[in-house]
Amino acid sequence: MQELLVIKIGGNIIDDALLLNNFLKSMGKITKPIILIHGGGKLATKLASDLNIPQQMIEGRRITDADTLKIVTMVYAGYINKTIVAKLQANKVNAFGLSGADGNLIYATKRNHPTIDYGYVGDIQNINIDVITMLLKNNYLPVIAPISHSNEAQLLNTNADTIANEIATSLSQHYKVSLLYCFDKVGVLRNVEDENSVISIVNTENIHELKMQKIIHSGMLPKIDNAFQAINKGVSKVILGHANDIEQMVDGTKGTTILLNK
Amino acid sequence: MQELLVIKIGGNIIDDALLLNNFLKSMGKITKPIILIHGGGKLATKLASDLNIPQQMIEGRRITDADTLKIVTMVYAGYINKTIVAKLQANKVNAFGLSGADGNLIYATKRNHPTIDYGYVGDIQNINIDVITMLLKNNYLPVIAPISHSNEAQLLNTNADTIANEIATSLSQHYKVSLLYCFDKVGVLRNVEDENSVISIVNTENIHELKMQKIIHSGMLPKIDNAFQAINKGVSKVILGHANDIEQMVDGTKGTTILLNK
Repeated sequence: MQELLVIKIGGNIIDDALLLNNFLKSMGKITKPIILIHGGGKLATKLASDLNIPQQMIEGRRITDADTLKIVTMVYAGYINKTIVAKLQANKVNAFGLSGADGNLIYATKRNHPTIDYGYVGDIQNINIDVITMLLKNNYLPVIAPISHSNEAQLLNTNADTIANEIATSLSQHYKVSLLYCFDKVGVLRNVEDENSVISIVNTENIHELKMQKIIHSGMLPKIDNAFQAINKGVSKVILGHANDIEQMVDGTKGTTILLNK
Repeated sequence: MQELLVIKIGGNIIDDALLLNNFLKSMGKITKPIILIHGGGKLATKLASDLNIPQQMIEGRRITDADTLKIVTMVYAGYINKTIVAKLQANKVNAFGLSGADGNLIYATKRNHPTIDYGYVGDIQNINIDVITMLLKNNYLPVIAPISHSNEAQLLNTNADTIANEIATSLSQHYKVSLLYCFDKVGVLRNVEDENSVISIVNTENIHELKMQKIIHSGMLPKIDNAFQAINKGVSKVILGHANDIEQMVDGTKGTTILLNK
């Protein structure tokens, strides 16, 4: 099967113009096909503040009322998506931006939570991989904004990590998929104060020990659990690392690689 | 050659939720392939006002400083484009939204005017029809936002009428193209106070007379001149009419059709 890189960049990368530009330059140097999924960053919060629309976050998730949905649609699917695409095009990468509504790429339902009203937040029900395979076959690099739709004309704010995970999983029927999460950390550290202590491999052999020793804990736990979930559903490997190291992450020389035993 | 409809909807349609919804429902009833190009409407002006970013218009063109470019990118390529796509998807039309940066669809240069600094406004240099033909061949309905790019990472605010005209012209090598401009007028009227006086055909035989009699004048003149320009470059016909009448415009029973003399 052909290799495919599904790369997610978080808000910390998007908010740092230099880091983002360097990362997007690297996209032009990687020869394997790529799908890029981007998060939101601080711009939506700033715009909401400038417009006096109060924002509420619960466990890192944005409560998305109608006004906030309008803002995230504008910022994520408009400004951030098109800015990334234009920068990639300037780097001779034939990028093609889209949201989950385009070509019915991501069908989601409005989150129905027993106690919290998240508002217009989408839980993914289906990924339409035809859209992606068409773009890949025509040598475009899909750039996906974290907005999905309900099939009833409702746009929905959707977690970019989850989109990356679901897209990687769905495409693993047709490609040998590596799923890369890029942020501003070099990987899973054995000693949180030592950037040189990156654990290069996490697999079913050492994960139990790493959890017991509390080396993998708090914020890192769900990321690792989601990574194993993706691998169990067919993704070849998951790599966590710093956006500056993306080329080395692809080579397997930097970051933390999560994979099944052997 | 296969028929193709290039349809432009203006801001007046976008600002009127009922008119827009009716128009988008009609898109599901037309069986010919369609490309939809949308303008901006009042939302960008309102957002700029809410953010205290002063707006300057010269002869109906928005002077686009850096802050205003951010606004139009958010509003046109984000909110309006994705709202239209989600509504079309809800009508079972497989819409696919894009801007001129996506897939390098519209390459433009920043306007260089001897006396007026229009700011980040794009003059179209090239349409990359591969993007459009790929989407059409895969049965998607492209929905195009009026934002282009410079190939140097610069997004540019671009007139939607001109985009429609250039796309129709470029595609007329491969398709028999009808170019439809939908607004809130029923067509060119012989008597401006009588909506039943629509001139159904304007061609090279009667255009001179209509101009001499001042039936075609002021705001209508450039529209008609642009229509003849498109026809001279290979577009089959241009139809002007009311968004509510789009199905009849396609049938040729409403609106004003501009074409060459037999």
